[in-house]
Amino acid sequence: MSDRLEAQFAFLNEADRLKSVLRATTLVDGSRPENSGEHSWHLALYALVLADQAGPGVDINRVIRMLLIHDLVEIDVGDVPIHSQNGQAHASAETQAAETKAADRIFGLLPKDLSTDLRALWEDFETAESPDARFAKSLDRVQPVMANLMSGGGTWKTYDVTFDQLESRVGLKIARGAPGLWAWVKEKSRPWFG
Amino acid sequence: MSDRLEAQFAFLNEADRLKSVLRATTLVDGSRPENSGEHSWHLALYALVLADQAGPGVDINRVIRMLLIHDLVEIDVGDVPIHSQNGQAHASAETQAAETKAADRIFGLLPKDLSTDLRALWEDFETAESPDARFAKSLDRVQPVMANLMSGGGTWKTYDVTFDQLESRVGLKIARGAPGLWAWVKEKSRPWFG
Repeated sequence: MSDRLEAQFAFLNEADRLKSVLRATTLVDGSRPENSGEHSWHLALYALVLADQAGPGVDINRVIRMLLIHDLVEIDVGDVPIHSQNGQAHASAETQAAETKAADRIFGLLPKDLSTDLRALWEDFETAESPDARFAKSLDRVQPVMANLMSGGGTWKTYDVTFDQLESRVGLKIARGAPGLWAWVKEKSRPWFG
Repeated sequence: MSDRLEAQFAFLNEADRLKSVLRATTLVDGSRPENSGEHSWHLALYALVLADQAGPGVDINRVIRMLLIHDLVEIDVGDVPIHSQNGQAHASAETQAAETKAADRIFGLLPKDLSTDLRALWEDFETAESPDARFAKSLDRVQPVMANLMSGGGTWKTYDVTFDQLESRVGLKIARGAPGLWAWVKEKSRPWFG
């Protein structure tokens, strides 16, 4: 019991560092960059509130669990903004290797059973092939769009993004897991780009 | 559909403000105060990782949902530190009235079905009578203890807390929902108090 709790808390204390990983996106009020810990909370809340936008076969409880752990590798690797040059290409072999190493280290802090479960959940998210992962990825893409809209442009300004780029870099991924959500968000976003 | 999404996003955008509510507790590295948004994420992760510490009849998915929304009323009311003078007494009638008003406003942004569901989940947490809520409350009490231990004292220093005070203000509440967890955390904490 004692060794198990030591391992569980080693992981939970290490996870705290996600609160110090900064993203390109700001808070809705534009006051400061968002960190990846609070972003993960907001996304889990998105899943809870937007569950009716998920397609058939999606297990919302599993989506929430997935979103809680989806960014932990950023503790070692950092966040790669979607509209930055590195964010636009598929993840490089180098980035993928670094993320795998981070997952080994971070999930490896847990007792074996939990380590295996959460690592598999993260890999499902990364692969984005299951209905759960596709919906989780849609939410991960839609939340920064809302932050940009609410804060007057955000990373669209930073990276000089066009509406066509928004559609190809972000919209298609949102539509893959939540088509109704993209249809709505697209109409909300279009006027900003004039 | 469109009106429903308007209401869902009005709530999700308002929820963003929880990231600007500061707590007395710091991050594990002591670098800055924790905010209530990232705290809610960390607690949901606690529930996921410490599920084996929950008693019989606890639904961990429901605990996670509860923890995601448990602090939203702080957007209007702010956080009341447990070791502060106001935190030690039972919540005053005034605080309770303010929190009820905040819940009316914030959950009231949602479509009716979601508003009813999430409001009921929050009330269950507040009452702390169900097994789910008791376990959720235990995690909400244990996470700041770990932050204090890791950061060299934290709010125990700020509020000049004794080991007996820790046990009566925090320990008994942790033990109520997770006795094994308090037994372990108690032994971890005792040496700090000398």
